[in-house]
Amino acid sequence: MIKNKKVNAAILIIGNEILSGRTQDTNTSTIAIWLNSIGVKVQEVRVIPDIEKIIIETVNELRKKNDYVFTTGGIGPTHDDITAESISKTFQLDYEIHKGAFKILEAYYKQGEFNEGRQKMVWMPKDAKLILNPTSGAPGFIVENVFCLPGVPSILKSMLGGLKNMIVGGEPILSHTVSLRTVESEIAQSLTNVQNNNKDVEIGSYPFFQAGKLGVSIVIRSEDKSKIDKCNSQILNFVKEKKIEVVKR
Amino acid sequence: MIKNKKVNAAILIIGNEILSGRTQDTNTSTIAIWLNSIGVKVQEVRVIPDIEKIIIETVNELRKKNDYVFTTGGIGPTHDDITAESISKTFQLDYEIHKGAFKILEAYYKQGEFNEGRQKMVWMPKDAKLILNPTSGAPGFIVENVFCLPGVPSILKSMLGGLKNMIVGGEPILSHTVSLRTVESEIAQSLTNVQNNNKDVEIGSYPFFQAGKLGVSIVIRSEDKSKIDKCNSQILNFVKEKKIEVVKR
Repeated sequence: MIKNKKVNAAILIIGNEILSGRTQDTNTSTIAIWLNSIGVKVQEVRVIPDIEKIIIETVNELRKKNDYVFTTGGIGPTHDDITAESISKTFQLDYEIHKGAFKILEAYYKQGEFNEGRQKMVWMPKDAKLILNPTSGAPGFIVENVFCLPGVPSILKSMLGGLKNMIVGGEPILSHTVSLRTVESEIAQSLTNVQNNNKDVEIGSYPFFQAGKLGVSIVIRSEDKSKIDKCNSQILNFVKEKKIEVVKR
Repeated sequence: MIKNKKVNAAILIIGNEILSGRTQDTNTSTIAIWLNSIGVKVQEVRVIPDIEKIIIETVNELRKKNDYVFTTGGIGPTHDDITAESISKTFQLDYEIHKGAFKILEAYYKQGEFNEGRQKMVWMPKDAKLILNPTSGAPGFIVENVFCLPGVPSILKSMLGGLKNMIVGGEPILSHTVSLRTVESEIAQSLTNVQNNNKDVEIGSYPFFQAGKLGVSIVIRSEDKSKIDKCNSQILNFVKEKKIEVVKR
């Protein structure tokens, strides 16, 4: 892949606890912000249950449609952690003890603590590449363009840094936000005009409440800073004309 | 639909701001918890961009696979709010002014305030049923089994109550949580045994950090309280044997 090419990714959150609403997913936002910073755009997110058939079908669909797929969850030691075995079946690879991962966890745990439960975490698709885990030892893994990460947010966060050299992004996606003391309906027509004049720039409009007052944040996104600047000045023009206050958020 | 049938739903989050990581989605959890309480299980969540073709394709796929589909986002007054028009095209219905919605907003706004921007919010698929909005006036809408809600979490929350009579759920999905001062690897084998003895109950294991200590929450889910109780006592048995502390969360 070369720079300037658009590079896409999908995020696949595996876990009944997100679907039941018990746990609030925060990994999507963590991964998406990090991917943006290295020029990869998240095109799609899916949340699916801990069911092997669904994991296999979904990974197969997403890995063909995207340059990268990031899965979270299901790589721990318990019976509901079925991601590694499901990914093995997805790629028709043996599910076996990964020697590199075994060595890492053998060294990580005190003698006698590397028990059967923990040993489940070194079972992986044959010849998977490891993703190192500076927080709790147990590595994630990579098969082709599928990157498997844990579900615990603090652990996941600590593992992203080590992945940077394994991903080839495009131009970083830049963004600029203008926050206004107004409501969307007041600026809708003007904003439509700006969008029509700048078709290859992504302009989003998001209402907010802050200190009891309504406002709207306009987010301009593009790989090209000059296009963002052009859009921004057109927005500031109508903001000035309409005597709308620009606010800090 | 009759009671005891499993009733499934999908949630479709429409919005570039979630995919970019700028905004943390909380609507999934709100909708899922509410659906659980009325006996509807969320089977799948997707997050997709504000692109008409993708919205149409995804809604068409999800509405066939699920009893209900809930969309969030994209029903406001700005250029990036394309959900209503996309849903019209999905069902090959005219996209037109909804007289009922028009009357509601005409009454909601002071004279002169129901401007062109706001009038966009009454354009809907022909003959859509309305979802009333006690917070900010502008209704959501329903076409067949697809329920379209706004993206702003506080507004969405206020609209769910009014939907209860429009949804036929199955038995409510009950859950019970046991939180333990242990780590997953210590209980993995015992928990696998309990799961194998109770195949039609969903048992999830989730590590947590609380006040600097590690713990594991075990969540048991089923429509049948007696099955949950049976599972729970099997878990408490091995917990007692292993001298693990049960903690409050």
